[in-house]
Amino acid sequence: MPKPQAVISVICAIALSTALAAQPKPRARDLGVPFDGVPGPNNAITDVKGVEVGHTTLISGDGSLKVGVGPVRTGVTAVLPRGKNSTDAVFAAWFTLNGNGEMTGTTWVEDSGFLDGPVMITNTHSVGVVRDAVIGWKVRNGHPDMEGYWWSLPVVAETWDGYLNDINGFHVKPEDAIHALDSAHSGPVEEGSVGGGTGMICNQFKGGIGTSSRVLDAKDGGYTVGVLVQCNYGSRDELRVAGVPVGREIPEHKAYEQDQDTGSIIVVVATDAPLIPTQLKRVARRVSLGLGRDGSYSGDGSGDIFIAFSTANGGAVAAKGAHPINVLTNDALDPIFLATVRATEEAVINAMVAAGTMTGINNHKVIGLPHDKLREVLKEYNRLAK
Amino acid sequence: MPKPQAVISVICAIALSTALAAQPKPRARDLGVPFDGVPGPNNAITDVKGVEVGHTTLISGDGSLKVGVGPVRTGVTAVLPRGKNSTDAVFAAWFTLNGNGEMTGTTWVEDSGFLDGPVMITNTHSVGVVRDAVIGWKVRNGHPDMEGYWWSLPVVAETWDGYLNDINGFHVKPEDAIHALDSAHSGPVEEGSVGGGTGMICNQFKGGIGTSSRVLDAKDGGYTVGVLVQCNYGSRDELRVAGVPVGREIPEHKAYEQDQDTGSIIVVVATDAPLIPTQLKRVARRVSLGLGRDGSYSGDGSGDIFIAFSTANGGAVAAKGAHPINVLTNDALDPIFLATVRATEEAVINAMVAAGTMTGINNHKVIGLPHDKLREVLKEYNRLAK
Amino acid sequence: MPKPQAVISVICAIALSTALAAQPKPRARDLGVPFDGVPGPNNAITDVKGVEVGHTTLISGDGSLKVGVGPVRTGVTAVLPRGKNSTDAVFAAWFTLNGNGEMTGTTWVEDSGFLDGPVMITNTHSVGVVRDAVIGWKVRNGHPDMEGYWWSLPVVAETWDGYLNDINGFHVKPEDAIHALDSAHSGPVEEGSVGGGTGMICNQFKGGIGTSSRVLDAKDGGYTVGVLVQCNYGSRDELRVAGVPVGREIPEHKAYEQDQDTGSIIVVVATDAPLIPTQLKRVARRVSLGLGRDGSYSGDGSGDIFIAFSTANGGAVAAKGAHPINVLTNDALDPIFLATVRATEEAVINAMVAAGTMTGINNHKVIGLPHDKLREVLKEYNRLAK
Amino acid sequence: MPKPQAVISVICAIALSTALAAQPKPRARDLGVPFDGVPGPNNAITDVKGVEVGHTTLISGDGSLKVGVGPVRTGVTAVLPRGKNSTDAVFAAWFTLNGNGEMTGTTWVEDSGFLDGPVMITNTHSVGVVRDAVIGWKVRNGHPDMEGYWWSLPVVAETWDGYLNDINGFHVKPEDAIHALDSAHSGPVEEGSVGGGTGMICNQFKGGIGTSSRVLDAKDGGYTVGVLVQCNYGSRDELRVAGVPVGREIPEHKAYEQDQDTGSIIVVVATDAPLIPTQLKRVARRVSLGLGRDGSYSGDGSGDIFIAFSTANGGAVAAKGAHPINVLTNDALDPIFLATVRATEEAVINAMVAAGTMTGINNHKVIGLPHDKLREVLKEYNRLAK
Repeated sequence: MPKPQAVISVICAIALSTALAAQPKPRARDLGVPFDGVPGPNNAITDVKGVEVGHTTLISGDGSLKVGVGPVRTGVTAVLPRGKNSTDAVFAAWFTLNGNGEMTGTTWVEDSGFLDGPVMITNTHSVGVVRDAVIGWKVRNGHPDMEGYWWSLPVVAETWDGYLNDINGFHVKPEDAIHALDSAHSGPVEEGSVGGGTGMICNQFKGGIGTSSRVLDAKDGGYTVGVLVQCNYGSRDELRVAGVPVGREIPEHKAYEQDQDTGSIIVVVATDAPLIPTQLKRVARRVSLGLGRDGSYSGDGSGDIFIAFSTANGGAVAAKGAHPINVLTNDALDPIFLATVRATEEAVINAMVAAGTMTGINNHKVIGLPHDKLREVLKEYNRLAK
Repeated sequence: MPKPQAVISVICAIALSTALAAQPKPRARDLGVPFDGVPGPNNAITDVKGVEVGHTTLISGDGSLKVGVGPVRTGVTAVLPRGKNSTDAVFAAWFTLNGNGEMTGTTWVEDSGFLDGPVMITNTHSVGVVRDAVIGWKVRNGHPDMEGYWWSLPVVAETWDGYLNDINGFHVKPEDAIHALDSAHSGPVEEGSVGGGTGMICNQFKGGIGTSSRVLDAKDGGYTVGVLVQCNYGSRDELRVAGVPVGREIPEHKAYEQDQDTGSIIVVVATDAPLIPTQLKRVARRVSLGLGRDGSYSGDGSGDIFIAFSTANGGAVAAKGAHPINVLTNDALDPIFLATVRATEEAVINAMVAAGTMTGINNHKVIGLPHDKLREVLKEYNRLAK
Repeated sequence: MPKPQAVISVICAIALSTALAAQPKPRARDLGVPFDGVPGPNNAITDVKGVEVGHTTLISGDGSLKVGVGPVRTGVTAVLPRGKNSTDAVFAAWFTLNGNGEMTGTTWVEDSGFLDGPVMITNTHSVGVVRDAVIGWKVRNGHPDMEGYWWSLPVVAETWDGYLNDINGFHVKPEDAIHALDSAHSGPVEEGSVGGGTGMICNQFKGGIGTSSRVLDAKDGGYTVGVLVQCNYGSRDELRVAGVPVGREIPEHKAYEQDQDTGSIIVVVATDAPLIPTQLKRVARRVSLGLGRDGSYSGDGSGDIFIAFSTANGGAVAAKGAHPINVLTNDALDPIFLATVRATEEAVINAMVAAGTMTGINNHKVIGLPHDKLREVLKEYNRLAK
Repeated sequence: MPKPQAVISVICAIALSTALAAQPKPRARDLGVPFDGVPGPNNAITDVKGVEVGHTTLISGDGSLKVGVGPVRTGVTAVLPRGKNSTDAVFAAWFTLNGNGEMTGTTWVEDSGFLDGPVMITNTHSVGVVRDAVIGWKVRNGHPDMEGYWWSLPVVAETWDGYLNDINGFHVKPEDAIHALDSAHSGPVEEGSVGGGTGMICNQFKGGIGTSSRVLDAKDGGYTVGVLVQCNYGSRDELRVAGVPVGREIPEHKAYEQDQDTGSIIVVVATDAPLIPTQLKRVARRVSLGLGRDGSYSGDGSGDIFIAFSTANGGAVAAKGAHPINVLTNDALDPIFLATVRATEEAVINAMVAAGTMTGINNHKVIGLPHDKLREVLKEYNRLAK
């Protein structure tokens, strides 16, 4: 049974979501940030059919509390490639730009070419609890079976939220992971200080979850590419928004005294294009180029780990012997590569735009990217779209 | 506070250890298996100065019990490169021969070149609990500090014991991980059905933990190479002992009906030779050749993951700016490569020799490698050393 | 126009081939070496339908000649996945066990997942001339086209024959590469001191080209796996034949004073099983286990580089957009892995069995593995098959 | 003896160099492109002490000539980490962003951790001739020795110049490679349509060789990071200069009808910071982020291959046994990472700024980036530095 605190947090999260739904927050495009390419209907990873996203957001206590008790500013995000009711795997591959982070389950993704279950994202010190909880969730849902002959190697990633969250209090519980899974849904995705992104910091502004998507031209196959980031990396000075040196123009109120590229970023790329793992690894590697556009130099302290999957070829993992699959020719990859770069570039900015100012442990305060100031700077550089 | 069952398990483990110490079991060499090269005083990974090993062995219930309750045939093994009282890191690298397994923490080992903490080995479904427990143990020992500004990415590996153990009962608890850490010691290492290896199966015989070491000639630097395996892989038919087709000569009582190379093997290689990560990755890759000598073909279902570290260059991770370290020239690596191959070859056989017959969940029974029969076969092939 | 020397060499090679065909040499199996599994009709890589192999063998001058003039003990071997008349690519992947060697073209094999052309093998200092010659050969055969809009990244590998061959005399010429390509054929493959393997040394015996194959059971899909090696690695002491310490039992006449694992081995694995690149990389990695069975420890000076390809899915590289291919389920890979290990193990022994004693530069003499002595040793260890 | 054509080409190249020296071309900074960080005295890879660069530029024939005869628009560039008179190796590592290209010698760079010789860059179809020529050059300079006991695995990379150059005419000869080596020098580096970059195209403008450097603050160690690119990649639409969408603002006169990211980019990163290979691999990976800033999405047809080396720790490859080297702590890498990103970003723009309009095979014409228009666009976006 969940502990009272967690229940409250969950209720709180649901309440917050409802509130957010009632009053939609502007996204980067709404503020006039110019991005290239055509997004899907939700401009979200869920534009790739079948993909569901769920968050558990844990916020409690004020900034004066003590280590081990709180304050709590953390959570769990679940990305389910085929939704929570499917046990079918997807072709997948991963890539590390800088390895100061964790993504469990990747040795088997690498060798099998499959992602068999959700991608979970949480804080650095809660990867274990989330990992084992995913196995428990699978067992309860009949996969692996009760005889225990199957095994599971869940994919769980993290970024570090200890500047705002009592990370050594280990506040994420198994039921929080399961709630993220069970509440996953298609459609619009909550962004900013939600789920695993609750306590994150990005370019010294408040960061968190961001998402974006691109739909390819019909002549390029009409595929969709969706990206979701848990954004916790970056120095203020290097931040570029649509190429504009926004970070340097808004130097105030940096989270840390030193303007290092600390933190990390986890990126999930989904597509319905029929790609095999060799190709998906190349897609995952393109995430670096999107981060490059935003100014990242991927500091030593950053865990910049990316995973890409294709929802095409359902049933491939369960097929017996030699069986047919669909594959896109390498010659047709360029629009997918470009869509990945663009959606990554935008998802990071979306995360910052959505996340408001937050105060956490030791009364640390991290400001949200100020919307008006962002528009001013873009205008100054003749890059305001509207 | 630990739960009663776990306390009993720990007590049980201690009692078992004591019993084992009182009545030393023969090892492969004692049975006349011929191996090349000169082992260290304990023929164990602990022959590398500073390395400590601890086990928590969890055995309870008989074969008739139900999923979720037991029987319990599992545990945790901890390998501490510089002992449990050091917070100093070691240069390290890892390699995957087949990726159907888990070793957390490896993206940062890969990029930093350091292993900062213990290597833990447990069952597949308990990696998470052990991982987070290691962080808790570090926090309590002042690393990372109480402000939470440091983070930790523990290295935890696994093999699957669900044929004997109620793996979906999640019987490993945080205190079991901590006991393995706190009880780690230098000197002789318990082998067979202990620690993480408690419920493992190797070449369809009972498997588990095995270890071995080699000491290089003075002209080659006099370095020590130590290997520890958690051995859970292999088909009976392919098993070779000192090149002799032992598996095919002892076809009786296979654990599974099908003689597949299922299971996995985790291998830890330690050395005091001053190697940098580039070189340690090459050492880790040589583990494959040792397994090749034992007949492995590394089946699709196997998680064959290896990590190698060097205890030389203490203080390197904490040094500031440019600082001196010692490095062995590449030209001098051959004896270390050969020692790695030989110690791996022997550690696997040691694991099987040490592990006796065990009955577990659903009354599954796995026989220990019969010592007399092993000697007979070796003699038949003119390979019995004594 | 070819230079006279090269023409003579080519004629010489053809004459040698004819002589060899007239008087078939015994292979390892013929001598009673026991190997597991069922080979194809030629026990050669050409048992995989479509695969063709061609050699150019360059032998001239006696041991007294000078650097830059001769003696010449070298050549080129070509492996054509779909034969010399096809321009269709194959799915492929590669793996390096130890990197002290060269295989050009591998970055594109890695990323594209295709091998688009032959695998060429020659000596270390002739990789360049062979590489560019392959492009010339493709241009002349209309691929890439005369507009030059296509490019080519040939795969050319090497091992070092400078102990017998005047390697710094650069005796391999473009026409030698082209002859190897144009003379490629299906059916039996010449082994020993031929083609790229002409001047090679293996376990301090004369080495060179070796090959072997396995045919899977119908229940496992009935696929064929073929292996070809250019074998130039290994220490005498570590050599095992069918698990028997043959090297230590025949310590006489080592090529070098020091018994190091110098040299290198290039291994090509072919199969008609419908594998995608992710799977072929796993196949390539299994070559290590076959070498492990033969006693390799992959010394620092060794270039142990392997490439694996699948002849299934013809036309995949040229297909447009999304197109169907066949893929084998991962669950069915084990017999292919095992076949790869076994065929590798045998191909190396075949290379040594086929290669007779040779004298080269500076009157260096390298003895062939003595057949009678090999049989004696196998018998002593109760491992002689007939 | 060099053939007359090559001699003329070399003379021509020298004449061109002289002309260029007499009338210095503006670089990107001179045109007012704003870049961050402090460059070294030459803003070139040669700012890293010891590094020398040499070019052989081959230009002959007009656009009307035929395949196999010309026109010739190609060459060779040599980067010598410790200059042409040193046989000492440097620590090195490499990384592939997209593998549709060649860099020979990298398997041994990867495993040894050393680059033992120059980095050569030429056209795609001349990699072989340059590779073997480097061995010949080493032999003549006493490395490897005349007994042939050493071997050499040269590093040679390429990009494709077949749109302007008669690439299938194989116009690069051994003496062209040797001239690039022998004429290498410290100090200013020629940029644009020189050396291996002679016939290259970048973002559909004329491309070629570019270079840049950064000097770190004294508090960060005062190290220098230098970058040299052979730039042949990119789509016009995606080109950003200092974040400004310059490519879209200058849509005229694209080289190809389709605005794909074809071509490739080879990047060499040099530093005097004492980095070991693990760290240098991380540096090489950061090149991606610099290309990201310039708008690259690394198309399927691109060979984006990077190598990084450190000139510190002279003598390390030749040292015997365990020996001391200097290493920078990982905590101090961030300024080096950032310098790599910035110098890469600038080197690409420098290549385009330096390369003027060129006409080549089939009268293909590629325009140089128009300087005035570049300044106009930067001004329009409020990014003109002066």
